[in-house]
Amino acid sequence: MSDFSLDPRLERDGLLVSNLGLCQLRVMNDRRWPWLVLIPQRDGISEIFDLTPLDQTMLTFETNMVAAALKKTTGATKINVGALGNIVRQLHVHVIARSEGDANWPGPVWGFGTAEPWSDEERKAFAARLLENL
Amino acid sequence: MSDFSLDPRLERDGLLVSNLGLCQLRVMNDRRWPWLVLIPQRDGISEIFDLTPLDQTMLTFETNMVAAALKKTTGATKINVGALGNIVRQLHVHVIARSEGDANWPGPVWGFGTAEPWSDEERKAFAARLLENL
Repeated sequence: MSDFSLDPRLERDGLLVSNLGLCQLRVMNDRRWPWLVLIPQRDGISEIFDLTPLDQTMLTFETNMVAAALKKTTGATKINVGALGNIVRQLHVHVIARSEGDANWPGPVWGFGTAEPWSDEERKAFAARLLENL
Repeated sequence: MSDFSLDPRLERDGLLVSNLGLCQLRVMNDRRWPWLVLIPQRDGISEIFDLTPLDQTMLTFETNMVAAALKKTTGATKINVGALGNIVRQLHVHVIARSEGDANWPGPVWGFGTAEPWSDEERKAFAARLLENL
């Protein structure tokens, strides 16, 4: 995967949690919601259907594994999964833990308000709990 | 699939386009965006990771097939794919054609403004073009 390069906005907005088989798993630096992003480590891909069939299956497997772990870690009411990419075109899949009464509930998180950064300690504790549940 | 029942809000907000192998494919009755919804015909499922592994793979296959057809049909800038379910809990996957300058671009479609219903004629022509590209 040495030819993979991460979009600078994805790099800036999130922090690495782990490398899965296909995807880099990052946590958005916004403590309003437990919000993860998976980025398939393939260059030049914007749409899920542009991945090979094997990569599509891998992405599904990793996304659902992360979503189940996030549900277990947070006890959230609902997991939101989305691949939008209207602003950052490098393919990335959002996996967000939503709970009744959280910011903008039950509306979507994208484009809402201003990010509230995690403290290093909080973020590391969250990432550690998530990895235990993966 | 005789024991599958569609959530009344999904039934009200969209119109049937086709039955795929796993999913019912519907078009939202909102002409602001070409907006499709896939509903796996399984009862009692809210999260993608609650589907069986085979159904997860089928859902991925059908979602990506529909997304590619929607891109071809519309020539959209970006296809948005999302499973939120904060309001309607029956699992459903949105596949939306987005183009620069459309309503709320580049923000998300969910919860934005008020639906503008298709005319029957427009909607049937759109569904027919989409089915040709499936």
